[in-house]
Amino acid sequence: MRDFISMKDFTKEDILEILRVAKELEEKNEVELLKNKIVGSLFFEPSTRTRLSFTSAAYRLGAKVLGFDSPDATSLKKGESLRDTIKMTEAYSDIIVMRHNRDGAARFAADIAKVPVINAGDGANEHPSQTLLDIYTIQKEFGEIENKKIAFIGDLKYGRTVHSLTKALQLFNCEFYFVAPKIIQIPKYITRELDEKGIKYHLIEDYKQILHEIDVMYMTRIQKERFDAQADYEKVAGVYVIDKDSVVGKCKEDMIILHPLPRVDEIKIDLDETKHAKYFVQAANGVPTRESIFAIALDKVKIESKGKIEKNIKTSDTVICGNEKCITKFEETENKYVVTGKHIYCYYCNKDIKK
Amino acid sequence: MRDFISMKDFTKEDILEILRVAKELEEKNEVELLKNKIVGSLFFEPSTRTRLSFTSAAYRLGAKVLGFDSPDATSLKKGESLRDTIKMTEAYSDIIVMRHNRDGAARFAADIAKVPVINAGDGANEHPSQTLLDIYTIQKEFGEIENKKIAFIGDLKYGRTVHSLTKALQLFNCEFYFVAPKIIQIPKYITRELDEKGIKYHLIEDYKQILHEIDVMYMTRIQKERFDAQADYEKVAGVYVIDKDSVVGKCKEDMIILHPLPRVDEIKIDLDETKHAKYFVQAANGVPTRESIFAIALDKVKIESKGKIEKNIKTSDTVICGNEKCITKFEETENKYVVTGKHIYCYYCNKDIKK
Amino acid sequence: MRDFISMKDFTKEDILEILRVAKELEEKNEVELLKNKIVGSLFFEPSTRTRLSFTSAAYRLGAKVLGFDSPDATSLKKGESLRDTIKMTEAYSDIIVMRHNRDGAARFAADIAKVPVINAGDGANEHPSQTLLDIYTIQKEFGEIENKKIAFIGDLKYGRTVHSLTKALQLFNCEFYFVAPKIIQIPKYITRELDEKGIKYHLIEDYKQILHEIDVMYMTRIQKERFDAQADYEKVAGVYVIDKDSVVGKCKEDMIILHPLPRVDEIKIDLDETKHAKYFVQAANGVPTRESIFAIALDKVKIESKGKIEKNIKTSDTVICGNEKCITKFEETENKYVVTGKHIYCYYCNKDIKK
Repeated sequence: MRDFISMKDFTKEDILEILRVAKELEEKNEVELLKNKIVGSLFFEPSTRTRLSFTSAAYRLGAKVLGFDSPDATSLKKGESLRDTIKMTEAYSDIIVMRHNRDGAARFAADIAKVPVINAGDGANEHPSQTLLDIYTIQKEFGEIENKKIAFIGDLKYGRTVHSLTKALQLFNCEFYFVAPKIIQIPKYITRELDEKGIKYHLIEDYKQILHEIDVMYMTRIQKERFDAQADYEKVAGVYVIDKDSVVGKCKEDMIILHPLPRVDEIKIDLDETKHAKYFVQAANGVPTRESIFAIALDKVKIESKGKIEKNIKTSDTVICGNEKCITKFEETENKYVVTGKHIYCYYCNKDIKK
Repeated sequence: MRDFISMKDFTKEDILEILRVAKELEEKNEVELLKNKIVGSLFFEPSTRTRLSFTSAAYRLGAKVLGFDSPDATSLKKGESLRDTIKMTEAYSDIIVMRHNRDGAARFAADIAKVPVINAGDGANEHPSQTLLDIYTIQKEFGEIENKKIAFIGDLKYGRTVHSLTKALQLFNCEFYFVAPKIIQIPKYITRELDEKGIKYHLIEDYKQILHEIDVMYMTRIQKERFDAQADYEKVAGVYVIDKDSVVGKCKEDMIILHPLPRVDEIKIDLDETKHAKYFVQAANGVPTRESIFAIALDKVKIESKGKIEKNIKTSDTVICGNEKCITKFEETENKYVVTGKHIYCYYCNKDIKK
Repeated sequence: MRDFISMKDFTKEDILEILRVAKELEEKNEVELLKNKIVGSLFFEPSTRTRLSFTSAAYRLGAKVLGFDSPDATSLKKGESLRDTIKMTEAYSDIIVMRHNRDGAARFAADIAKVPVINAGDGANEHPSQTLLDIYTIQKEFGEIENKKIAFIGDLKYGRTVHSLTKALQLFNCEFYFVAPKIIQIPKYITRELDEKGIKYHLIEDYKQILHEIDVMYMTRIQKERFDAQADYEKVAGVYVIDKDSVVGKCKEDMIILHPLPRVDEIKIDLDETKHAKYFVQAANGVPTRESIFAIALDKVKIESKGKIEKNIKTSDTVICGNEKCITKFEETENKYVVTGKHIYCYYCNKDIKK
């Protein structure tokens, strides 16, 4: 492990090792582990929480941070390619953390860069450090991850966070409840995969019927803009606003509520002080999780890893990714794709490619 | 002392202790006092001088700094509440410095945060570190603060700086000259308080008549926008522009000129090199003053303090602050207010509440 | 040497000393040379590459960095003068790195500031650290700078980089090829100077005829906006796009291609992996070069220097710089000018003044 680009690159063992290191770094105070290291923090779109969390993790380990927090103050305005921005930054820093608006931008950057690249979110594609801190929170709160019953609530169609976490938790034999109005329910390609693997899941519209049996309630924002008809939005929006009354006493004693944040109004603040509210703890867990990522990427801790997951990667001028937001549409790439048993998908943005 | 929110929280002894620590930190070089500490620097509106001064103070004591310098690159655009931004930042830093556009935002943040909060200006309400560095400058220049004759010149109606400094200097038996056209003269609630305490003050329009007797000439910007009629502005504006000719030789030998900066044209640059010009020294004094604030807030120096000033704080759903710019209008607060002898005022923004 | 404002201030010996220190700092790891030093990084216009490169250099030597990366988040919006911004920053930092949009702003700032000032680009005037890193790259690649044949290609009329580098390389007995369409060919005042000194140069339109004999191919962007007629642009633009086919095998074995970056499309990426492509190495060389500048400016290394080049500087109220973009038009300066044998030129922006 060197780059942190996609949860697809990690085995279950890899994930457990990353969490183990996170725990150790949280307990110890390794203030010089990354002494004299420079982190290049490239935020091509703003994301305060992710950016500050990575910066805090770097500082806690003794590293320094340079970069930009939005593209307004960059050479991008002069038309510089991502390729060249990466070639520049690798000369000025020892590791790159990048948030980018294009799907697949992180994989592309990792191929270009001589230094490790951490994906801090690439368009609608992946945000692996968020997934890792989500799992870390579950592990910390319950002592283990196996066999948990997880309800995802809200916008499950567009939520990168939910897709990624579902994928990762499959490795831990979890059971899923996808709670959403049909119009923003979880995509078919995910349920298809769950079907193929024989993993239990439920598609429902109201969380109240399953509130008593779940271990984790994973809330997300429902965005008004997703709905064509204002009336449709108003019909469903209220159902997914939780408060003390609607949750406390009606759920398991040790049920936890998570949220990737920022919230708008889907969790009322009267829940914040209850024992179930773990979303701020979750945000705080971003620091040790990202410390772990830095330490592993820069080879400063030893981990047990059975090496990279093998992928069957091919290059072609005719097999072209159809995703209009894919980095392949904006940069000169090698047009790589990945062949699995039945499918092929874009090496960069992970979208299925139709043959 | 932990939070630095309002000058109202400090006794005279507290102020003298803060200044003593500032002096000690200016003389010694405590480059590791805040080693491994992280300062969260949250500027919801831009303020280069204040931000860089706090950052310099943090660096000089060995701390690291993360945050943002304007709200453009933040999650605020996604509608995140100040409450949640603070809950996030307290996980990523050991102390928070905050500049915010809402009156009372700093007190609100301090109530929410687990880490100390430093008010770097909250709307039209307070900016205590500015007041402290102003007093520090007077103390350094004269050896003491007691019994000084201070003229405030310019926009005294809207100037948060002037109001705050007047309040603080009352503790040191100073005499005040408020020099301004009637339309932007010092507010009545301040002179009422001076009257009640029997403190000497003068309301005048032309500084020339008192130039020979004052110790401190505190200049401020007069903003054109404050005047309804352009003609009114032009009538007064010129009177409050000082230069070498209008000051040197006509004032006390040791009179000092202060200004919170940035100036526009109210002090001509031919004054900069005179012995009276202390506004750049004053700006530089922001560094040791803010070092002192950090060191005290993080409990890294011992100070003599007789504890917090007791306030009679109440909570109510019916006693509501009438200030439309108060943080209570924008966040879910506890609607606290403070009861004094005759008056009640908003716990957050300090504005009087009419019963 | 203290300030780094203009290549005009350096003798050949000075330049060689700066490069010597750069090389030493690149080889050694002087991580504490600037410990506890604070760099004020003032970017009045965005420039990611230059800013990050200076920041990286500061970090590699143990310094801290504060400042701003664009004027949007500064007091400039309140109308603060550059003079006052500099007076502020000198109190908060030990050295100032400044990029400014006005010609001559750097010299003005250096006169004001008590701390050393590094010019990171002032309008169309100078960008000395770019010139130094260009020369450093030539020295590193060839072992020496003397007697090289250098072709400058592209926009030679407006390119500050090209003008500055031409000036510096004259000291090393180089031969120049200025390759550009007439409309954006090198200015006459430069060829006039070369003529006066008897230095060999060639004005041509197509690089192909001299490709086999040059040592350095210095590419620049051609900007569409420079051309009045779109047709003119299209006629020439294609000629100045190089790729593997047009260069490899047709040039000297050890010819190097440089570019100040960012490029747009004038160098195709198929050249990046060839041995000739040195533009990313060049960008990386910005770090040791700027480390050297910091170390010398802050007097942390010993260099052999025969002292400042003497200039005949005069002040006048009647001899006025005619450059509308000169800092003298925007700030209260002393209106200095420099007298040479035949000419006089503006002390700030270096433009000739007609008597």
